[in-house]
Amino acid sequence: MIRVVVAGASGYSGGELLRILAGHPEVEIGRLAAGEQAGKRLAGVHPRFRGTELGERVLAESDWNALGEGADVAFLALPHGHAITAAPRLLAQGCRVIDIGADFRLRDPQQYTRWYGLEHSAVDLLHEAVYGLPEVFRPRIAEARLVANPGCYPTAAALALLPLLPHAADEAIVVDAKSGVSGAGRKASLEYAFSEIDESLRPYGVLSHRHTPEIAQTLAFAGAPRQVVFTPHLIPMIRGLLATCYVRLEEEPEDLQALYSERYRGEPFVTVLGPDELPVTGSLRGVNRCEVAVRYDAENRLAVAFGALDNLVKGAAGQAVQNMNLMFGVDERTGLEAAPTGS
Amino acid sequence: MIRVVVAGASGYSGGELLRILAGHPEVEIGRLAAGEQAGKRLAGVHPRFRGTELGERVLAESDWNALGEGADVAFLALPHGHAITAAPRLLAQGCRVIDIGADFRLRDPQQYTRWYGLEHSAVDLLHEAVYGLPEVFRPRIAEARLVANPGCYPTAAALALLPLLPHAADEAIVVDAKSGVSGAGRKASLEYAFSEIDESLRPYGVLSHRHTPEIAQTLAFAGAPRQVVFTPHLIPMIRGLLATCYVRLEEEPEDLQALYSERYRGEPFVTVLGPDELPVTGSLRGVNRCEVAVRYDAENRLAVAFGALDNLVKGAAGQAVQNMNLMFGVDERTGLEAAPTGS
Amino acid sequence: MIRVVVAGASGYSGGELLRILAGHPEVEIGRLAAGEQAGKRLAGVHPRFRGTELGERVLAESDWNALGEGADVAFLALPHGHAITAAPRLLAQGCRVIDIGADFRLRDPQQYTRWYGLEHSAVDLLHEAVYGLPEVFRPRIAEARLVANPGCYPTAAALALLPLLPHAADEAIVVDAKSGVSGAGRKASLEYAFSEIDESLRPYGVLSHRHTPEIAQTLAFAGAPRQVVFTPHLIPMIRGLLATCYVRLEEEPEDLQALYSERYRGEPFVTVLGPDELPVTGSLRGVNRCEVAVRYDAENRLAVAFGALDNLVKGAAGQAVQNMNLMFGVDERTGLEAAPTGS
Amino acid sequence: MIRVVVAGASGYSGGELLRILAGHPEVEIGRLAAGEQAGKRLAGVHPRFRGTELGERVLAESDWNALGEGADVAFLALPHGHAITAAPRLLAQGCRVIDIGADFRLRDPQQYTRWYGLEHSAVDLLHEAVYGLPEVFRPRIAEARLVANPGCYPTAAALALLPLLPHAADEAIVVDAKSGVSGAGRKASLEYAFSEIDESLRPYGVLSHRHTPEIAQTLAFAGAPRQVVFTPHLIPMIRGLLATCYVRLEEEPEDLQALYSERYRGEPFVTVLGPDELPVTGSLRGVNRCEVAVRYDAENRLAVAFGALDNLVKGAAGQAVQNMNLMFGVDERTGLEAAPTGS
Repeated sequence: MIRVVVAGASGYSGGELLRILAGHPEVEIGRLAAGEQAGKRLAGVHPRFRGTELGERVLAESDWNALGEGADVAFLALPHGHAITAAPRLLAQGCRVIDIGADFRLRDPQQYTRWYGLEHSAVDLLHEAVYGLPEVFRPRIAEARLVANPGCYPTAAALALLPLLPHAADEAIVVDAKSGVSGAGRKASLEYAFSEIDESLRPYGVLSHRHTPEIAQTLAFAGAPRQVVFTPHLIPMIRGLLATCYVRLEEEPEDLQALYSERYRGEPFVTVLGPDELPVTGSLRGVNRCEVAVRYDAENRLAVAFGALDNLVKGAAGQAVQNMNLMFGVDERTGLEAAPTGS
Repeated sequence: MIRVVVAGASGYSGGELLRILAGHPEVEIGRLAAGEQAGKRLAGVHPRFRGTELGERVLAESDWNALGEGADVAFLALPHGHAITAAPRLLAQGCRVIDIGADFRLRDPQQYTRWYGLEHSAVDLLHEAVYGLPEVFRPRIAEARLVANPGCYPTAAALALLPLLPHAADEAIVVDAKSGVSGAGRKASLEYAFSEIDESLRPYGVLSHRHTPEIAQTLAFAGAPRQVVFTPHLIPMIRGLLATCYVRLEEEPEDLQALYSERYRGEPFVTVLGPDELPVTGSLRGVNRCEVAVRYDAENRLAVAFGALDNLVKGAAGQAVQNMNLMFGVDERTGLEAAPTGS
Repeated sequence: MIRVVVAGASGYSGGELLRILAGHPEVEIGRLAAGEQAGKRLAGVHPRFRGTELGERVLAESDWNALGEGADVAFLALPHGHAITAAPRLLAQGCRVIDIGADFRLRDPQQYTRWYGLEHSAVDLLHEAVYGLPEVFRPRIAEARLVANPGCYPTAAALALLPLLPHAADEAIVVDAKSGVSGAGRKASLEYAFSEIDESLRPYGVLSHRHTPEIAQTLAFAGAPRQVVFTPHLIPMIRGLLATCYVRLEEEPEDLQALYSERYRGEPFVTVLGPDELPVTGSLRGVNRCEVAVRYDAENRLAVAFGALDNLVKGAAGQAVQNMNLMFGVDERTGLEAAPTGS
Repeated sequence: MIRVVVAGASGYSGGELLRILAGHPEVEIGRLAAGEQAGKRLAGVHPRFRGTELGERVLAESDWNALGEGADVAFLALPHGHAITAAPRLLAQGCRVIDIGADFRLRDPQQYTRWYGLEHSAVDLLHEAVYGLPEVFRPRIAEARLVANPGCYPTAAALALLPLLPHAADEAIVVDAKSGVSGAGRKASLEYAFSEIDESLRPYGVLSHRHTPEIAQTLAFAGAPRQVVFTPHLIPMIRGLLATCYVRLEEEPEDLQALYSERYRGEPFVTVLGPDELPVTGSLRGVNRCEVAVRYDAENRLAVAFGALDNLVKGAAGQAVQNMNLMFGVDERTGLEAAPTGS
C-alpha cells in the first residue's frame, strides 16, 4: 500500500484528489492537512464526504515538519509560494512529493519570479523536479522524488499540440482557452460569486496569464520552442476546459488524423476523436481523460487543434494520481478508470 | 423632477435601482454613495453601466449628514443596522427615505432585536414608518416620510396569500419558498461562489429565517394573524423567487379564481394567472410584476397559492420606485413599464 | 457473474445505469437495446463513453422476445407503457426484470389507468411485482422476479417521511419537491430547452403529478395511509432532487433526531444529517445515497422533513443496481460505493 | 408613427424584437405572424408578455400576400429560406423589409447556395439588399427598401476587427467565438436540451459555419479581403456572444487604443473599452451595444481584438430596430436606450 498525505485538502483540487484516492485500491490515506479550515471534519468542508468514514477525519494543521512522517508520498494542493517551503521539509522526511500547485513547474527561477512575483528559494529542487506530464516524461516521472504536476491549461494545450509540433511553422502559436470556474480555486471572492459568473463569459489575463510560460516551456521540451499567445476565458460552468489552438504548418502532413492516432497509440488517458467528433467538456466530468481533435484549413495551412479535459482531474488531481502510480510502479490506470458521471 | 440620492449603489439592489431610475422620466439622479467601493466609478463597480453617462459618476462616501442635502428622497440599499443610523439624519435634512433594507419593517422593536440581534435605536421612526406594500398600504405610503420597503419573500408570500386570508382556517400557514442567489446580496463569500451553487439546491434558515416575522406581521396587518412556517431554498439562478403557500381553508369559497381576480382588479403590478397557467420566474426577470396563481385540493380543503417575482425588482428596487411614485404623486407605473427581457 | 441486459440504454437513466454497471465487479454487461437510437454506437449516443470498450458497443433493436436470452436480469429504462409489453416476454425467457419505469409501481390497475391513461394489460404481474424500496421491502426484493423500481420523488419523500409516520396526525401530508431537469427524460422538446430552463424555476403538475398516488401508496404500505398534496418544481440544474415535507404530528416524539437515526441505523444508502446540517443536492451528484434531515416547529406541532438525492442514481439507476444486488445475493453495496464527484 | 408587422414572432429574436418595439415611442405594432404557433396568444408563447396588452394579441398565419398591407415595414425573423419567398411579396405591398435571417446577407448567390444548400430565387433583391451594419453602411441603410440584418457572430467580429483592417497583414484572420444557446433559435431539439448543455462547452461547425463567408464579405466590403478561420463554441448560457480575433499586423500602429476610439467616436452603440477593461457578456444582456477591446503582443506583431454583444439584441433584434430608425429618419437611439438588466 502507498501511504499518502494530502496538504490543501479543503480546496477543490484537494477534494477531488480525496475522491479519487478513496477509490484507489493501493492507497492508504494518512493525514489530511488544511490552512484556515484545520480543525474541521472533512465532511464539514466538503459535504460530498458526508456519510463516509473519510468524511469524519479531522483536518490537521499544515505542519511541514511532521506531515510527511511515515508517508510514502505527499500531495500538495496549495496556492503558489507555499510548496517552496513545504517540499524540502517533506522530502527531508523521506517522503516523495507531488506538487499540484505551480511552484516547481517553470525550470527557470527568473521566469518564476517574473510571472509569480516571488523569489524562488528552492532552486536546486526546481532543477530536480520532473514535469509531470506522463505523455512526455513518463520514464523520468517514475524515478522522480519531486513531481511538478502540470497546470490545467498547459495539459490541455500540450496534448492538443504535441503531434503537430514537428510540422509547425516557426511563428507564434495561438491558444484560445475556455475554462470552468473551479480552476480559480476555492475562496471567498466577489469575482467568482454565482451572480457575477452565471449567464456571462469573459476573457481574463489576456497576454499575461501565468500558464503562458508553462505552455511555451512544454513546447520547448518537446523540441519546438515557439512563442505562445494565450487567451483564457472564464465560462459559467464549474468544471471543464477546452484549449482551441491555431497552428500554421510548415507543410501539410499526409494525414493529420493518423498523426494523432499514432502519437497517442496506447496512451490510456488521451482519446483521439474521429473526423466526425468534437469534444464536449461535460462528457469528461470526473474522469482522467483528455480528448484531442484536429481539423485542417488547407487554404491557409492552418491546423485547429482541440484539447479538452476536466480541469480538476486530468488538469489536476487525476493527473497527480496518474503520476503517483508511475512513481510507485503501480499500473498507471489504477484508481482512475471509473466511468464519468457526465455533466 | 424628483431629486433622488442612493446609498448602497454598489450592491445588487442598488444597481437595479439605478437601472430603473435611469429610465424614469420624472427623476433626477443625485449623489450615489457606497461603502467600501466609494471612490470608484459606477461603471467600474457595475460593468453594465459602461458606455453611459451615469456609469462615469464617482461613488461618494456614505456621509449621512450630507447625502440628503437638496434631495427629495433617499433610497437606502444597505445591510441591516445601517439605516437605523442613516434614516434619522436624512429625514432631518428634509429628505424622505425609502429603506430597501430590513431596519424599519418590523413594528415591534423587540421582534427586531430577537430576529436581527440588535437593539433598535430609532423606535419612534419604527412606529412612523409605513410598510411599503402598495397593494395593502397605498394611501398611507403616499403620505409617508419613511417607507420600509418589504422583503422579497414577504412580498411574494403576501401577494399570494392576501385573497385567501378571509377564508383561512386558524392554523399555521406553510410558505415553502425558492429564491435565486442575488437575494443574499453582493459580497465576497465562499457560500455563494459559483462552484458551490451551480447544479445544486439547498434549504437554509429553516424555521429561523428573518423574513418569518415579517410575513406573519403582514398577515396580521391584513386582519388574519397566523403562525407562519417558512422554509426558504437557495436555487442555482441569479434572480427570481417563488413562494408556494399551503393554506387550509375554513370553507371553500365559491370560486377561488374569481376571488383572486377581484382582489387584484386594477392592480398594475399583480397578474392573476388563469387556471391553465403557472408562474415561470424567468419570464419576470427585470420587471416590476408579481404573478399569483391558486389551485385547490377539495378533498383536503387545502389551497396551494403561488407568488412569483424578480427578487431585485418587485422584491426590492422596483417596488421601491413604485413607492416613490406614490409618495410624490406621480402615476404609479411611471418608469416601471418596460417589457421584461426574459431569462 | 450476473449477466445483465439493458433496454433504454440511450436515455439518461440508461446511461447512468451503464456507468454504474461498468464499475460493478459482479456484472457482465450483455445486450444494450434502444428505440430510435438502435444501430448507433453507445459512445455516439452518450459521449461520456468515448474511449471505452463499452462505448464501442452497438445498440440493438428492442426485440422483447430475444433480449432476455441467456441473461439473468433485464433492466428496463423505458417510457411508461412499454414495460407492460416487455416484462412478460423477458420473464418468459427466464430473465428477472427490474423496471426503472412506472408500469409496475401502482398496485391497483385502476389507479394506473387513472393516472397514466392506459389500461394495464399485465395485471397478474402487477400483483406479483415488488416495489423496490430496499429500506422498506428488502426481504421481498431478494425473492422477486419483477421489481418495480420507485420513482425519484417517491423515493425522496418516502425516506424523508418514514420515521415520522407513526406520529403523524391523520391529515394530508404536504410534499413540496424540487427537481433537476434530467428527471423529465431525454427527448427533443422545447419545454426542456436550455433557453427555457436556465435562470428560471416553475411549479408544474400541481395536484396532478403521477407520483402523487405512488407516494400515497408507500405511506399506506408503511401503515400510515394519508392523503398527499404534492407540488413538484422544475429547477435549473441537470440532476438533484429535494422533497420538503410538512407533517403535523399527533404528539411530539421525545427526540426526532434520534428517531431518524434509529430508523436508518445500518442502512447503507441513507444518511441522517445532524441538527446543524441541511442537505445540499450537489454533494450527492452521482452517488446512491439519500440524505434526510428533520426540523420541528413545536408551536404548530409541525415537522419539516427533507429527503435529498440524485434523481438518476438513488432516484433511478443506482437504486435499480441496489435492487439487483439484493436479488442476486451480492452485498448490497457492491458497485455503489464510489465517492461522488460533487457538483 | 411607423407601422410595423413582425413575422416569426414566436422565436427568440421575434420575442426580443417585440420587447424592444413595445417600448419604442414612434412605433405602432401591427400584425404578428407565426408558423406552427399561429392561433395562440403572444403571452401563451412568450410568458414574459403575460399581463400586458400586447400579450393578448393572437398570432396570425404567415400569409405573405396580406401581412404587409398598410404596414411601413415588416421584420422577418424566420429560418433561412423563408424570406426569399416572403420579401418580394411584402415589398410588392409597399412595405419595406428588414430581414433578421440570413437570406439576403451574402451578395453572391453561388455563395448562398454553397453555404445554405438552396438556390436563391430572388437574385435581384439580393443585389438590392443593403447589409444592415450601421457602423459601415449607415447612409445606404437609410435609403434601403430591403435590409439584410447581420448575423450575431459577423456583427461582433466585424466591430472588433474594423479598426485593425488597414494595418492587417495579408493572411488569414482567426476568429474564435463563443455564444450562448439562444443563437441556435427556438425549437424542440435534443441538442439544445438543458441537460445536454449545462456545465459543458463545445466547439461546433469548425471550418464549416455559415457565418464564415459573411464575416469574410464584411472584411472585403471594408476594403480588406482576408480569409477567415472561424471557430464557434457553444457556451452554457442563454445569451451573450464574444468574438476573440487574432490579427497579425503589417506594422504596429502608433496607438491601437486611440485607433479604436477614433474609429468609433460618436457611434451610439459601440463602446471602446479602456486598457484596463475587458468585456463581460452578462453586462450587455438586453442592451443594443457592442463592446470592443484590443490588446497587442509586440513580439509577435499580433493583435487580439474582442467584440462582445447580446446575440439577440445588437446581434439581432436590437440592430434591426436600429436599422429601422435609420430607414425612417428617426433618431438612431430611439427605443434602444434602456439600461441593461445585467445578467
